[in-house]
Amino acid sequence: MIGAEYIAEFFRQRGSNKFFLVTGGACTFIVDAIGRNPKTDYVCFQHEQAAAMAADSLWRIDRTVGVTVATSGPGATNLITGIACSYFDSIPTIHLTGQVNQSESANFIGTQVRQAGFQETNIVDMVKPIIKYAVQVKNGEELKIELEKAYNLAISDRKGPVLIDIPMNIQKEEVGDVIIYNAPKEEKLSVQESQKISQEITKFFKDAKRPVVLFGAGVGLSGADKDVVEWLSKNSSVPFVASWNGMTYFNHNMKNYHGQIGVYGNRGANFLLQNCDALLVLGSRLDNRQRSGNPKSFAPVAKVCVIDVDAEELKKYKNEGYKTIHLNLTHSKEVLTITLVSSQEWIDYAASLKKKFFGKDASEFSKKNNSLSPYVVVQKINKMISDDAVVVADDGANLCWVFQIFHRTNQVLYTAGGNSPMAYSLPAAIGAALHQPKREVIAFTGDGSFQMNIQELQTAFFHKLNLKLFILNNDGYGIIKQFQDIYFGGRHEATGHGYSAPDFKKVVEAYGVKYFRVESLADITKEIFDYQGPAVIDVILHQNTLIEPKLEMERPIHDQYPYLPEAEVHSLNKFNNYCRTKK
Amino acid sequence: MIGAEYIAEFFRQRGSNKFFLVTGGACTFIVDAIGRNPKTDYVCFQHEQAAAMAADSLWRIDRTVGVTVATSGPGATNLITGIACSYFDSIPTIHLTGQVNQSESANFIGTQVRQAGFQETNIVDMVKPIIKYAVQVKNGEELKIELEKAYNLAISDRKGPVLIDIPMNIQKEEVGDVIIYNAPKEEKLSVQESQKISQEITKFFKDAKRPVVLFGAGVGLSGADKDVVEWLSKNSSVPFVASWNGMTYFNHNMKNYHGQIGVYGNRGANFLLQNCDALLVLGSRLDNRQRSGNPKSFAPVAKVCVIDVDAEELKKYKNEGYKTIHLNLTHSKEVLTITLVSSQEWIDYAASLKKKFFGKDASEFSKKNNSLSPYVVVQKINKMISDDAVVVADDGANLCWVFQIFHRTNQVLYTAGGNSPMAYSLPAAIGAALHQPKREVIAFTGDGSFQMNIQELQTAFFHKLNLKLFILNNDGYGIIKQFQDIYFGGRHEATGHGYSAPDFKKVVEAYGVKYFRVESLADITKEIFDYQGPAVIDVILHQNTLIEPKLEMERPIHDQYPYLPEAEVHSLNKFNNYCRTKK
Repeated sequence: MIGAEYIAEFFRQRGSNKFFLVTGGACTFIVDAIGRNPKTDYVCFQHEQAAAMAADSLWRIDRTVGVTVATSGPGATNLITGIACSYFDSIPTIHLTGQVNQSESANFIGTQVRQAGFQETNIVDMVKPIIKYAVQVKNGEELKIELEKAYNLAISDRKGPVLIDIPMNIQKEEVGDVIIYNAPKEEKLSVQESQKISQEITKFFKDAKRPVVLFGAGVGLSGADKDVVEWLSKNSSVPFVASWNGMTYFNHNMKNYHGQIGVYGNRGANFLLQNCDALLVLGSRLDNRQRSGNPKSFAPVAKVCVIDVDAEELKKYKNEGYKTIHLNLTHSKEVLTITLVSSQEWIDYAASLKKKFFGKDASEFSKKNNSLSPYVVVQKINKMISDDAVVVADDGANLCWVFQIFHRTNQVLYTAGGNSPMAYSLPAAIGAALHQPKREVIAFTGDGSFQMNIQELQTAFFHKLNLKLFILNNDGYGIIKQFQDIYFGGRHEATGHGYSAPDFKKVVEAYGVKYFRVESLADITKEIFDYQGPAVIDVILHQNTLIEPKLEMERPIHDQYPYLPEAEVHSLNKFNNYCRTKK
Repeated sequence: MIGAEYIAEFFRQRGSNKFFLVTGGACTFIVDAIGRNPKTDYVCFQHEQAAAMAADSLWRIDRTVGVTVATSGPGATNLITGIACSYFDSIPTIHLTGQVNQSESANFIGTQVRQAGFQETNIVDMVKPIIKYAVQVKNGEELKIELEKAYNLAISDRKGPVLIDIPMNIQKEEVGDVIIYNAPKEEKLSVQESQKISQEITKFFKDAKRPVVLFGAGVGLSGADKDVVEWLSKNSSVPFVASWNGMTYFNHNMKNYHGQIGVYGNRGANFLLQNCDALLVLGSRLDNRQRSGNPKSFAPVAKVCVIDVDAEELKKYKNEGYKTIHLNLTHSKEVLTITLVSSQEWIDYAASLKKKFFGKDASEFSKKNNSLSPYVVVQKINKMISDDAVVVADDGANLCWVFQIFHRTNQVLYTAGGNSPMAYSLPAAIGAALHQPKREVIAFTGDGSFQMNIQELQTAFFHKLNLKLFILNNDGYGIIKQFQDIYFGGRHEATGHGYSAPDFKKVVEAYGVKYFRVESLADITKEIFDYQGPAVIDVILHQNTLIEPKLEMERPIHDQYPYLPEAEVHSLNKFNNYCRTKK
């Protein structure tokens, strides 16, 4: 085999046999080899960014590693925003970039020129801040070694994307016919270690009367979701809450689930955090959208214990007095042995919060303005889709509207949480539909974000993908308009003023994609979901539709807009010194 | 002023008062300040990549520095491919990226986590391989210092893009009302130094009978184009040739101009290089598309002298025996004092080559296939546009077809030569049309490339821009198909097979943009050019239309496809040992 053939066969044997790509001069040998291998195939996207986002999607659905191929220079740099999606959310993806022949490279010439070979670009150094591992291979032997190494790094410990940059001459080099691959060694936890951690957790909860568990994405990424769900089910007097990336790993009907948390979190879930006395965080990095810009105001009367696979993340808490446990949550079953019980008072409190806030549409804007509520729209869609649908949300306001109200049973629900680029959801949905063509795929986007990868309607059309993209259309960049209303006296610079969008009906239909327009709840019909093939559903909202609830700057997470009456906040903060705003 | 207001006013004073952007959470203060400053304005693009390419366009037209604004994370990373266009072609552009509040950054927290603040991304390190200077500012005072420093670096010496990353809290910080700016000191060349270099050049040409000058982009970038043109006019017995990026700085009617060179170069120009005995290279980096993959086969019987502003570029030639002069070509007039004369034999030889090849359509494909020739199409457009039109070509086959045949008089003619991304020309043309609305703007693209930034049709429509985009439509990626025909037995993997495009008429019209279809030369009518507003002209070509001439791998630049008869190559290489292929 030549290097290119080896690559195709290596990934086929790993179960990643469909490559997402835009071709180009420096990756032609790889693309040709994929085409010639009878068991591998590729999908042409219209922009490498979309290929990378589609690849990012696969692990989130069923733990398949997505692979992209791109050419040197602009091909490689176009992948970057998609790679960042995988990095910040710990998603394993593989990116193979072609590079100029070694003999034409700046390195070979021995000078630090801006560029030697045509389209030569140092992609390896460029991606380092957003990738787990990146390397340019120096010969065919190294190609084989690095493929194994990079693949195993991608899927091990805290997962993430990797990139292998392959000069053209190595793509052509004869490398032999034996695929080298040894799966990463399973990291064992000794009985002593697991007992020790188990005891630490027991000790942590000692005397706790108001425990809460935070279910993070790390639970699911480590494959421990079933074990943790079982443990939470057994300890059903203990309320648990979830991060956004954690929400897809359990059934929201679980009795002790109390909602998602944070800046846009469910009020009930946030009050639980602010009033608990012991918080166990499983695989969540507690970023600023969870704890607010002022982490000290988060869970102010609780002991906090964080379990995370990444030791670096745990260092964040050294000034905050959190207990930290460095552990891959694959071992959840071995260490979560404690039986926990809440006090009756806490059980009653949690129940009252759940009754009041869980699954409730807290928004006031639509009622005041007699306009269509995005929350009601999402709820209706939620009820109409199948139990195993794939649901992708995009960014900004549309993301909040979906994640604030969506009730997950067995669907896959995801977004690129940490990077949160505009226009993730259409390519991600394309990735999902290509990967699991029989499944219902539902995506949400905004009118602004939709435009940024609108070219991929062609990919959806060409492959007759069965996906439905809902535009929650508020004629501008909603999440920023809301910010501008608060801080800039309502000047909608570049979000309303100067912003524009085409007639989506015309553009969508020009691509041969079905278009539906929704102006009222009644327009969301069975016909939409019965339609076979790609469809865009344009949901027309009031242009100033708000995200509700939403935390404004400098406030703790229990004090969200729209503001509750003083007395109510006081009463709901009964375990938290009855304070409104503790900074 | 707060930092954001300072930024708007700083660039206004520099003459860059129109910012190209997509807004986002972390740059809202800057965008708001631009909106509030009565003398600055912004244009909203649909993708940051397009904003960066549009900004790159301005200096190429009239030496205006283009400025973009983007938000942190995906906003910043989306700029990268556009920034690379500026870097490799030495174009000054400024990129302002918003960043998370310092207090929310990973740095502040003191850990190496993947991400701390929402959408926090280390853009400064990421762009370093493709940028002249990048910095994150630490406070308001530093913002002022760095703006001056970065701006001056961008426009000095070998020019290039710069990026300033500005945390939100610094955008809001009070920085005082005085704009700090001192223009870079003009680099003086003493009389002694200029005499010395002048004498070196004189010595270099001593005894030369067959001199050639290569006109590179560095001549124009340094602003010396008029001086060099004057010198070349005076020495009209000396033939000169041009690099692609050099082609825009002189009138192609000049008597001693013999065409563009390289892999896709004019045969006559290439034969001149291969047969000259003294080659003076002015401001060209002689990359692989000029000298081929084997530089030793380039100008094999000539002494070569290269003048370049970048000392690093000159190091490339140390093993090749080239004479090098490290000089900013702004001083061209002071050092190009020599009066040069060619031998009569060389004058006759050059004249015969020019007669045979200059301005001639060398292609055979269209004749053989009775199909529309892209060269004839470009020639007709060339004749119909105004003398001061702005003409932008994209990448791949369409770029070659334009640059191989376009005859520039006073037009601006450019492409992003070194990076050569797909889909540069539409956003670049948008930048041109926004910047000089009264000028005729003509862009060329391919059907594949067009799709990659198709969303910007909305920007063109919204601003009613007077631009004409010609799609040289060969239903796939032509330049790679040609490569696949030669090396992969015609397997058009991902260039024909698996490739698709929408009905452009429908999509273009859906955006409110005028569509014309061209199937024969007669369809290129005055109506197209008279149309006021954005228009797309879809020129339907045979799907296997070739780039001709074209150098295949391992050959020297005088031996291009379609191959000349052995006897003719022999006779045209009369000063070059009559060889066909010298490796």
